[in-house]
Amino acid sequence: MIKLITLDAAPPFAEGRVRDLRVRWALQESGLPYEVELVSMEGRGEARYRDLQPFGQVPVLVDDGLCLFESGAIVLHIAEKSGQLVPIEHAARERVRAWIFAALNTVEPSVSQLTVMDREPSDAPGKAERRPQAKLAVDRRLDSLQYALGKNAYFAGDFSAADLIMTTVLRFLDNNYLESFPALADFRQRCEARPAFKSALAEQLAQTRFGEASPTASASAGGSG
Amino acid sequence: MIKLITLDAAPPFAEGRVRDLRVRWALQESGLPYEVELVSMEGRGEARYRDLQPFGQVPVLVDDGLCLFESGAIVLHIAEKSGQLVPIEHAARERVRAWIFAALNTVEPSVSQLTVMDREPSDAPGKAERRPQAKLAVDRRLDSLQYALGKNAYFAGDFSAADLIMTTVLRFLDNNYLESFPALADFRQRCEARPAFKSALAEQLAQTRFGEASPTASASAGGSG
Repeated sequence: MIKLITLDAAPPFAEGRVRDLRVRWALQESGLPYEVELVSMEGRGEARYRDLQPFGQVPVLVDDGLCLFESGAIVLHIAEKSGQLVPIEHAARERVRAWIFAALNTVEPSVSQLTVMDREPSDAPGKAERRPQAKLAVDRRLDSLQYALGKNAYFAGDFSAADLIMTTVLRFLDNNYLESFPALADFRQRCEARPAFKSALAEQLAQTRFGEASPTASASAGGSG
Repeated sequence: MIKLITLDAAPPFAEGRVRDLRVRWALQESGLPYEVELVSMEGRGEARYRDLQPFGQVPVLVDDGLCLFESGAIVLHIAEKSGQLVPIEHAARERVRAWIFAALNTVEPSVSQLTVMDREPSDAPGKAERRPQAKLAVDRRLDSLQYALGKNAYFAGDFSAADLIMTTVLRFLDNNYLESFPALADFRQRCEARPAFKSALAEQLAQTRFGEASPTASASAGGSG
């Protein structure tokens, strides 16, 4: 059976945002049976865990001898194995993949940079001068995203792995951030209304303890990947 | 024929670092014939270009009606089409894909953040306080990378698309940065010694004008993706 390995505990800011949410959601969409194994903060540093996940992050997926890390690669694996979340036609599938890379390599880095800054105290060195620039970088990406979405419901045809991952990237932002990007707010809401998303989030919140302050779990140290 | 669309000009710091290098390198490895179309800074902002590349970045690949953006997705396309740069066996191919995501989503963001900071004046707000933390984030990733590489020549079996992309990420760092990570310095040198890399770099340097200072082309604005 597929095994998802993820955190047993995370700090409050990560509640509903740990990257295993992507994997749980994809698994729920796929209908594939799976089990969850929880790893502690200390356990992530041990050599036997590093053999599974070189950067000590979560999530990890083990499936019939195949061990995968990186949430993007794991979601693609689940999508292709189940035949859900990716189109059958080859070119359409490649477009979905391009949007997955866009979410992870073009949108997420600027979003992460802003959200890490927003967790700093207001008098952190240079924060007052740097935040407008960090926000501008995010807004530029969101402008482009909203333009690309246009009047479509999803980024690449029907709901796909790309929309799933893009939604989880947008979730890193504060809830009211998308008020200036109404089409993206609608998009996020549309995706989060899916029963599989709700089950995945409920499962994450039930299995992971949030609330313990742990500096080693900060996003800047890369708790999930 | 495959068409690569990329920049006609870029600022000096981007010399040998524009992300079309990944695509040129993969194409050179693959042996697939291709042509290059150059786009200006202004052209990247136009609606017809945004229809090809939603974020106005380079590179774009057009192949027989399929239009792809995001260098990760493009390199995977070339690899799969040519049968080069990815293993035949399915599980091994998925491991290569995980390492591509690791390069782009786990290593590149911290590397980019440091290199953008290093282009700021030394008295930029908060730079003195923030740089050590940014460097630590990079060093942690490189420590993990070096540990994962171990005594192997490449990250996932034979030389693959993952090594190609990882090399281009390491190239964002100053040349002497890897002195503290000898196995990664060797890895980079090993990959850059490939004839296909040399051809790709020479072609990029011949076709793109470097040296014009252009604030809109700064990496923070995301000139390539």
